[in-house]
Amino acid sequence: MTEVLPTVLLVEDDDAIQGIVEEALREGGFEFTSAKTGEEAVTLLKGRLVAYCALVTDINLLGSLTGWEVARAARETDPNLPVVYISGAAAHDWPAQGVPNSIILQKPFALAQLTTAVSQLLNERSVADLGKA
Amino acid sequence: MTEVLPTVLLVEDDDAIQGIVEEALREGGFEFTSAKTGEEAVTLLKGRLVAYCALVTDINLLGSLTGWEVARAARETDPNLPVVYISGAAAHDWPAQGVPNSIILQKPFALAQLTTAVSQLLNERSVADLGKA
Amino acid sequence: MTEVLPTVLLVEDDDAIQGIVEEALREGGFEFTSAKTGEEAVTLLKGRLVAYCALVTDINLLGSLTGWEVARAARETDPNLPVVYISGAAAHDWPAQGVPNSIILQKPFALAQLTTAVSQLLNERSVADLGKA
Amino acid sequence: MTEVLPTVLLVEDDDAIQGIVEEALREGGFEFTSAKTGEEAVTLLKGRLVAYCALVTDINLLGSLTGWEVARAARETDPNLPVVYISGAAAHDWPAQGVPNSIILQKPFALAQLTTAVSQLLNERSVADLGKA
Amino acid sequence: MTEVLPTVLLVEDDDAIQGIVEEALREGGFEFTSAKTGEEAVTLLKGRLVAYCALVTDINLLGSLTGWEVARAARETDPNLPVVYISGAAAHDWPAQGVPNSIILQKPFALAQLTTAVSQLLNERSVADLGKA
Amino acid sequence: MTEVLPTVLLVEDDDAIQGIVEEALREGGFEFTSAKTGEEAVTLLKGRLVAYCALVTDINLLGSLTGWEVARAARETDPNLPVVYISGAAAHDWPAQGVPNSIILQKPFALAQLTTAVSQLLNERSVADLGKA
Repeated sequence: MTEVLPTVLLVEDDDAIQGIVEEALREGGFEFTSAKTGEEAVTLLKGRLVAYCALVTDINLLGSLTGWEVARAARETDPNLPVVYISGAAAHDWPAQGVPNSIILQKPFALAQLTTAVSQLLNERSVADLGKA
Repeated sequence: MTEVLPTVLLVEDDDAIQGIVEEALREGGFEFTSAKTGEEAVTLLKGRLVAYCALVTDINLLGSLTGWEVARAARETDPNLPVVYISGAAAHDWPAQGVPNSIILQKPFALAQLTTAVSQLLNERSVADLGKA
Repeated sequence: MTEVLPTVLLVEDDDAIQGIVEEALREGGFEFTSAKTGEEAVTLLKGRLVAYCALVTDINLLGSLTGWEVARAARETDPNLPVVYISGAAAHDWPAQGVPNSIILQKPFALAQLTTAVSQLLNERSVADLGKA
Repeated sequence: MTEVLPTVLLVEDDDAIQGIVEEALREGGFEFTSAKTGEEAVTLLKGRLVAYCALVTDINLLGSLTGWEVARAARETDPNLPVVYISGAAAHDWPAQGVPNSIILQKPFALAQLTTAVSQLLNERSVADLGKA
Repeated sequence: MTEVLPTVLLVEDDDAIQGIVEEALREGGFEFTSAKTGEEAVTLLKGRLVAYCALVTDINLLGSLTGWEVARAARETDPNLPVVYISGAAAHDWPAQGVPNSIILQKPFALAQLTTAVSQLLNERSVADLGKA
Repeated sequence: MTEVLPTVLLVEDDDAIQGIVEEALREGGFEFTSAKTGEEAVTLLKGRLVAYCALVTDINLLGSLTGWEVARAARETDPNLPVVYISGAAAHDWPAQGVPNSIILQKPFALAQLTTAVSQLLNERSVADLGKA
């Protein structure tokens, strides 16, 4: 597979968590692009230079956009995009603020949970997407 | 079961569809309360006079609230409330605007789809709720 | 289909609920056998005169066996038997006392929930069972 | 809903079963078109005069096509079409011959199983399809 | 994440398997506590010094408690606790003795199966638990 | 676990992909046997010298058999065998050509997707198989 690996868009402003999540994605065989703010993430998504395979976003972000808003903007660009939220205190808002078919991970979580969450959503996504061809 | 039957909150401003959905719910053994606008529905939900078992809501409603907003308000009151959206043209917004673990029915649909959708969500809901006791 | 219809074993000692559930099963196209106690139900299951397609059992029963115990005995006879529990106050014990791949309905429930629950479990069951042939 | 109801394509050469299944679909609020052979069914599917919402097909059919082949032809026309197989003796071939995301009902089955199977597949289908808009 | 990692309670009396499972959990980013007997495990669960994120238990254990009993005791303390059973010969008792929403791994299994099983159950658990906040 | 590890049958004629997939399986704790053609794979399956735990197959293969045909032959030997397809351009045929309860991975995919896919199918498989004992 000399082709480009599937690329996750990671939105996380905490350097320590960003480093840990990047390491987990790398070991799972994913590429990734990291954004520090929701504004950056939305710019990347709308720019469509890369077809991201999934969005992993913290809820509370620097800047004015929350992770809830980033995910909605992402789904407007790609309605089937797998979304994994990372959250501390805001997790109880997921039933009202989350997008359908998303997974929320409450901190602290094990890295295997993250790669399994992304992989599960991607494996299910394939099915829906294949029907489009 | 002399107890009160589970009561669905139906939000629908089209009289014809309202009548058909009410008939399907009645045959499935559900009670229901019908609201014409999202504002009425939110008032009923926040009043908490009845513990609704599920929300069935059209997307485009008279008044200023959409079905998307009614569902979010409902989930703020009851984070596990089963939600079934009824939609015509707005269905493609569901991946971005819908709440998690909801079902959307695109018109036209068969009445068996509606009662199956409400029943499935309710049967799954029990599991999560039982853990709370 | 002149063949015998699939037969549900119903264990319920409350005459009113028994009548309602029987009516729902009949309308859904199921045959049924009703037992008043867990002891009767276990005798019928072990006698194997009929291959029941599913067990629907109340939790609190006359006699010394509870619905939890009836379901375990039933699964020892048929490890894939679909099980639906009906419960009032005892529902919070399901996470600890229920058998896997079962559904619990808390009273009051709509009759559509019952037929959907039995049908869902049966439709999933077919898959596992077909592999055996 | 003055719109046309969702229409199931039923492929069944046994008049008695055809009548029973049609009755169940009608009560569930579905329209249906009945074909006696796989050849007729494939002609209807490829003609695209009606956008069928689901295929319900017996396995053993008059003519040279089996239900397995009808389902594959149908999925080539509509890759997300819900498929429910009805089968007597041939059910054990489903793991090798069935299409993905299909349900098989072994005779005898209760009519509630059929309408629940079609409704479940349709309700899940909506989700995948909405993303396409 | 300077916070404590999620901690699995492992109940296994075979030193070789214990070592292998601990290694898999460590690589997946989980902490763990190991107990040799069901009695120890139950004491740890009831002591509530640590909020375990999941229970991984062998079925046949030294002492008088089986893994089936440990899991039931654990669910009485935490009704949503993810449970993964490890089993050799006793696996056929799972349909009758297991708790709902559990996974059973038959020996021999690959380590990826174990971390995927724990992660899947944890990721699903979050959803149910978030509704409680 | 001195017992033999679960063994995946891998069918892949591209040496580079074969190497990558083998590495992922090894890290996940699986044994594997690699075949270059569908004919080899079918011979191995029918020979029954090893009880493979899963089939991972590319779609386009050297020789006259496609991955679709290998999977059908495999399911005739073992109706519950977990099947994961790897595909580039042929992925849109999965809805018509795939077997039930299979997963398709479109290239390029991350290795975590592959081990998660095999593990998910295996973990679900256990349940169905346990009922047979």
